[in-house]
Amino acid sequence: MQKITLLIHCEDQPNIIASITSFMASNDGNIVYIDQHVDREQNIFFMRLECEFASSSFSIEKFKALFKNSLAEKFKLKWRMYAAERKPKMALFISKYDHCLYDILGRYNSGELFLEIPFILSNHLDLKPIADSFKIPFFHVPVTKTTKHEAEQKQLELLEKHQIDFIVLARYMQIVSGTLIDKYPNKIINIHHSFLPAFVGAKPYHSAYKRGVKIIGATSHYITEELDAGPIIEQGVTHVSHSHSIKDLIAKGRDLEKIVLSNAIKLHANRKVMVFNNKTVIFS
Amino acid sequence: MQKITLLIHCEDQPNIIASITSFMASNDGNIVYIDQHVDREQNIFFMRLECEFASSSFSIEKFKALFKNSLAEKFKLKWRMYAAERKPKMALFISKYDHCLYDILGRYNSGELFLEIPFILSNHLDLKPIADSFKIPFFHVPVTKTTKHEAEQKQLELLEKHQIDFIVLARYMQIVSGTLIDKYPNKIINIHHSFLPAFVGAKPYHSAYKRGVKIIGATSHYITEELDAGPIIEQGVTHVSHSHSIKDLIAKGRDLEKIVLSNAIKLHANRKVMVFNNKTVIFS
Amino acid sequence: MQKITLLIHCEDQPNIIASITSFMASNDGNIVYIDQHVDREQNIFFMRLECEFASSSFSIEKFKALFKNSLAEKFKLKWRMYAAERKPKMALFISKYDHCLYDILGRYNSGELFLEIPFILSNHLDLKPIADSFKIPFFHVPVTKTTKHEAEQKQLELLEKHQIDFIVLARYMQIVSGTLIDKYPNKIINIHHSFLPAFVGAKPYHSAYKRGVKIIGATSHYITEELDAGPIIEQGVTHVSHSHSIKDLIAKGRDLEKIVLSNAIKLHANRKVMVFNNKTVIFS
Amino acid sequence: MQKITLLIHCEDQPNIIASITSFMASNDGNIVYIDQHVDREQNIFFMRLECEFASSSFSIEKFKALFKNSLAEKFKLKWRMYAAERKPKMALFISKYDHCLYDILGRYNSGELFLEIPFILSNHLDLKPIADSFKIPFFHVPVTKTTKHEAEQKQLELLEKHQIDFIVLARYMQIVSGTLIDKYPNKIINIHHSFLPAFVGAKPYHSAYKRGVKIIGATSHYITEELDAGPIIEQGVTHVSHSHSIKDLIAKGRDLEKIVLSNAIKLHANRKVMVFNNKTVIFS
Repeated sequence: MQKITLLIHCEDQPNIIASITSFMASNDGNIVYIDQHVDREQNIFFMRLECEFASSSFSIEKFKALFKNSLAEKFKLKWRMYAAERKPKMALFISKYDHCLYDILGRYNSGELFLEIPFILSNHLDLKPIADSFKIPFFHVPVTKTTKHEAEQKQLELLEKHQIDFIVLARYMQIVSGTLIDKYPNKIINIHHSFLPAFVGAKPYHSAYKRGVKIIGATSHYITEELDAGPIIEQGVTHVSHSHSIKDLIAKGRDLEKIVLSNAIKLHANRKVMVFNNKTVIFS
Repeated sequence: MQKITLLIHCEDQPNIIASITSFMASNDGNIVYIDQHVDREQNIFFMRLECEFASSSFSIEKFKALFKNSLAEKFKLKWRMYAAERKPKMALFISKYDHCLYDILGRYNSGELFLEIPFILSNHLDLKPIADSFKIPFFHVPVTKTTKHEAEQKQLELLEKHQIDFIVLARYMQIVSGTLIDKYPNKIINIHHSFLPAFVGAKPYHSAYKRGVKIIGATSHYITEELDAGPIIEQGVTHVSHSHSIKDLIAKGRDLEKIVLSNAIKLHANRKVMVFNNKTVIFS
Repeated sequence: MQKITLLIHCEDQPNIIASITSFMASNDGNIVYIDQHVDREQNIFFMRLECEFASSSFSIEKFKALFKNSLAEKFKLKWRMYAAERKPKMALFISKYDHCLYDILGRYNSGELFLEIPFILSNHLDLKPIADSFKIPFFHVPVTKTTKHEAEQKQLELLEKHQIDFIVLARYMQIVSGTLIDKYPNKIINIHHSFLPAFVGAKPYHSAYKRGVKIIGATSHYITEELDAGPIIEQGVTHVSHSHSIKDLIAKGRDLEKIVLSNAIKLHANRKVMVFNNKTVIFS
Repeated sequence: MQKITLLIHCEDQPNIIASITSFMASNDGNIVYIDQHVDREQNIFFMRLECEFASSSFSIEKFKALFKNSLAEKFKLKWRMYAAERKPKMALFISKYDHCLYDILGRYNSGELFLEIPFILSNHLDLKPIADSFKIPFFHVPVTKTTKHEAEQKQLELLEKHQIDFIVLARYMQIVSGTLIDKYPNKIINIHHSFLPAFVGAKPYHSAYKRGVKIIGATSHYITEELDAGPIIEQGVTHVSHSHSIKDLIAKGRDLEKIVLSNAIKLHANRKVMVFNNKTVIFS
């Protein structure tokens, strides 16, 4: 039994659902999950589908070719197809904060995350012992004004060598280069410590304190060229009051950051996220 | 253009999705919404589907017959099919509390609810002026030990006469009879003022206060013979503290009750709820 | 038995708590509630205190004078003192949306709100029937470009005549004039339909939809000259998804708006809010 | 400068607040925090107070004696007084689940927790490597039917030897003995993986799944002789749907458990919790 996951978007058009489901059936596939969404503002159809094939001769590569030449061309589909059992490879970029790191690695260890972590990369050495204790390779790639380009090359090299599918910035305190963003479009997940679009940029907890908000938040989003403006995957919030100092906000925020980031990682790793026009569709 | 909404459940089996979608396509239907769920514990398949038919000769009655004799029999489906534009008719049962009533009627007035309210029924006269101000017929059906049976007959008569599709108990303070429950299975929505299954029965806020909980809740569910044990449609919660008196809990609870009940009404009226084995499947 | 509520702020200084509590004791007052907050960034001390006086000869006016000449001068206090049993008078300004209005009047009717509503004012006639059904005087004060000044005069006159303590803008769709703001500083409560400071200004739900946020909010704040930038009293949020249209956001937002605004009204009416440097301290 | 934290409860009575604040002032103490609560059902007064003493000759032991012989006797106070800078000592009891452990140790490492962890104790060896990586002594105290008494003796010995102030059961899967509970009353914090009082006992996620609830929760409480019935410190909840399997509920629940337990630990360690009649008062 082999299982595929298929993600599609295209202009909305009649019979698109029936055509795709019929195609699967006529190729001896049994659909076990289907969900769809139509963006009526933009007239775009989105679909996520899981299909099982019992035949021992089934080949995902052949099936991809078949799909491409028939349905995908006919309906002008944008699509991605995955072998469902293949775990995506995630690179973790970190700096000095450890709360997201512990949270992710704790889940990874317990089998909660459907992914592999070939390596952790940091511009500092501080958290190497944590990587070591979890027995995950750690690469120290310092970033200074003068070594910026060199660091980026080193990053690209490591990502390629380990066939990384997506990158998670777990409170990585450096701006990621445009080259990296272009190479991993909608594949670099960041956690921003505010309820975006409020408090874009540095020191959001300080700004939240100053504004006297009664709720703070955290936002996980894909990195784009514009700072903190990429497609939002997940957001979380918690109540605060006048009695909370900036330090308190930071501590409460850490709890949000780690939960929100881990949720976003799970959604991405399980291929439940589609991006269109700087917004996400999140399937159940 | 005519649109139908179809709700299905059956034993899970191969090709069920493809068969249904093909059936729609082969009858010139264009599926505009599809969602499904498989309960893997019980091996039950659930589906909700919306399909548009452009033909001017389309008749939902004929299509129902066709569906029944082909797919429904073949796959042993339990199913319901609705003309999407037909608003369900809801009867409101109330007593003396007015917060849910105001909330529902305010939404009704503003066009937020896809339903009709042919009448409001109460065992007290207190809230008649509210019904009057919203220009909705009000029937006073008092319930005492000796008039219980008579009251039930009156209720059944009104429900039938107005072709009521479902009943909402908006803090109606009488036990609904088994006869009514049998006649409207999974069609009588109640709001219970606790986070079920905690604090079943009378005076849940008093019990919550006594136990010292830090969160209180409200639960909307379908009425079954067993008290407060029916299928849960929606739940809401809010934080409380030691500083809240019972009176405070009751006031905070009112906010939960009205939002949770109105959400449940919307889900039911939009045919997004399926019930199986005392649990609900809620479609998006 | 007479009870007072005292609100104080001043520069933080030693013995301030002991001095105030001793003062109350030495005047035969029994403190039944005390809460305090120190803003360590700005070195400001805030206190809220409730004190009972059993003596039949107690006069709040005399006690105010005594307090002013002794403690208030010594510690350079900013302070307000209320007879606890005196209900504040609230004017309701509305336009065409009725959800906040129904929510407030429903609570008012049920005795949940510690306040009086001498009148409702609107720039439109649409909601007059609701005011009528609750038997609250309704004044129609239309606002056009040419009648702006005249309308403002009419508003001021009504507010003065009815000895209004604070104003609530329950989705009032006009800019309130600087004159009114100056006359009622931190006494005009607005509900903004976004999670401030995100989406300041008009059409926040449209902006939220466009940005693709996963959580929407509502904010109740005191009006200041700068648009949507006044001290925040209360905020609420709710989760949304890609499947929600702008219309859905508006409907979900209405639930937030009414709950958040009513909570802010309760806090203000119960004298639990202090404002300093464009931020609020909210006592329990 | 020395600082004390004082927790008091007693029968509510006139002048109690003024008397205590005057006592502090007359002993050259400067009150920097005061909060109080009156339980009007039971007529009990609760207070938490922080007071600074500038004198170099201040001794908390002498002050305790003074307080005991004057105020405490006069008002029949139940009270506890702490040197504010003294960190409480917490023992961690664990079994095989690691999510709460990682969460607590991550916070401990980052300085978020005001406490010391002299040792971790487990009835299994599985998580010893985690204790080791955080460099915290680990004691393996297996519990079987026949070694139950012996294990308890070992536990008591370790607790005494390390002068433990309170115990945290971080998903410790053994029943704690009555002897331990008696020795550490309201000092043993448990995390139960349900929204108490719903789903008392074993396998709450299975019960929640079966009942079809739309919200699951976690509860941190002090252990008492009756199972899952002790005073509740903190509760958290999260939304779930029909699409979540039991395994999903367990994973989502882990996030609740760790946050709720860590919050309860912080409240206890910061001496913000008082217990009376099986309920908690939580100070801000």
